[in-house]
Amino acid sequence: MVRPRNPLNIGAAARAMSNFGAERLRVVNPYDVAFRRAKSAVGAADVLKQAEEFKTVAQAVADCVLVVGTTAVRNRALQHKLRRLDEEATPEVRAKLAAGNVALLFGSEKIGLTNEDFSHCHWLINIPTGDKQISMNLGQAVAVCLYELARSRNTGVKPEDFEPATAGHMEQICDQLREALQVSGYVKPGNDLISEKKVRSLLLRMKLDAMDAKVFLGMVRQIVWKLRQ
Amino acid sequence: MVRPRNPLNIGAAARAMSNFGAERLRVVNPYDVAFRRAKSAVGAADVLKQAEEFKTVAQAVADCVLVVGTTAVRNRALQHKLRRLDEEATPEVRAKLAAGNVALLFGSEKIGLTNEDFSHCHWLINIPTGDKQISMNLGQAVAVCLYELARSRNTGVKPEDFEPATAGHMEQICDQLREALQVSGYVKPGNDLISEKKVRSLLLRMKLDAMDAKVFLGMVRQIVWKLRQ
Repeated sequence: MVRPRNPLNIGAAARAMSNFGAERLRVVNPYDVAFRRAKSAVGAADVLKQAEEFKTVAQAVADCVLVVGTTAVRNRALQHKLRRLDEEATPEVRAKLAAGNVALLFGSEKIGLTNEDFSHCHWLINIPTGDKQISMNLGQAVAVCLYELARSRNTGVKPEDFEPATAGHMEQICDQLREALQVSGYVKPGNDLISEKKVRSLLLRMKLDAMDAKVFLGMVRQIVWKLRQ
Repeated sequence: MVRPRNPLNIGAAARAMSNFGAERLRVVNPYDVAFRRAKSAVGAADVLKQAEEFKTVAQAVADCVLVVGTTAVRNRALQHKLRRLDEEATPEVRAKLAAGNVALLFGSEKIGLTNEDFSHCHWLINIPTGDKQISMNLGQAVAVCLYELARSRNTGVKPEDFEPATAGHMEQICDQLREALQVSGYVKPGNDLISEKKVRSLLLRMKLDAMDAKVFLGMVRQIVWKLRQ
């Protein structure tokens, strides 16, 4: 959960997680009072008591092999692939779960996920709703997503035949590559933030496996070292 | 919603309804303050503003051709058929929706639906959860059920080839039949409440169509009249 503000929604997310067998709740930059109040609530599920807090999305998803964002908006002008929850999205999520941790990102109650948050995502999920009211309550959106993933648990998805790189490794490459682009003058001063997102998105689309990611990181590091000479 | 106590849950149910295209929220014996607070909430959806209040389940479902209860308990010792939400339950709900109104009953936060409530149901739905925590938050349970029903909207279910009797007509038959059984000495004094449920369940299992229900009601009425002589 990224920047949640309402302790009831944090609690509701944890409740849905224990209903549908998800264990690790990670909260990025929560409204401080809300997070403390949710954690100390009477009847707080184990999930909530063990919830972890992070300062950035990058840190929260570092050990994940797939990062999926959620959005109510279907036509956001983004480079991200948008999939419908259900048949379009769940098979890949389940396949990746066989290989490692998968992060499902939910934004704040008011504005959802930002473009900066999206830049950490491999692709996005949309819960199909009627057109009259496309924005769901946060706790309910979590429940519906986890229900759908649990529902499809036994549909015989084959695990992928490769070990994907974690988001943490990809972020290291991103840092190095950005440095290389800055030092080399590819990125103009002042455009730093935009380029960060572009580079990250590019890297995520590459779908490197764990070994390739290591090799690639070594290459970029070497380039940076040379550029710094 | 039967006897809801928390205005936030009433609001959450209404929100999910507007997300997934359900329009008529009916509330039976709500905790009064909760219902008023929910209705007057800032940003209350149209669904909530038009919500209707009833004193009994029978009145709330009177115009429905199918009444489905929800329960977290999978092995309740009941005569009711229990179906899993998803493939087991949704085709029949959708088929009946083509013929008339369908009621989805949700119980109170603490105890869910009672046996008395169940006696108004044709069958029951269970949301499949993990065994660790089978009880869902009320607002989330509503969201998951409506999501699943909306999801299966376009799977080409054929409407049934008959016009089912409404719950209101069946309840009239139930009243008459009970009277006949009382007057005739079938029901022993003191067993009235139990027999009410038994009779109602029996009638619901009969699956009368609208015309048969009328004919049957006429028969039972005549019997009662004769018994009263």
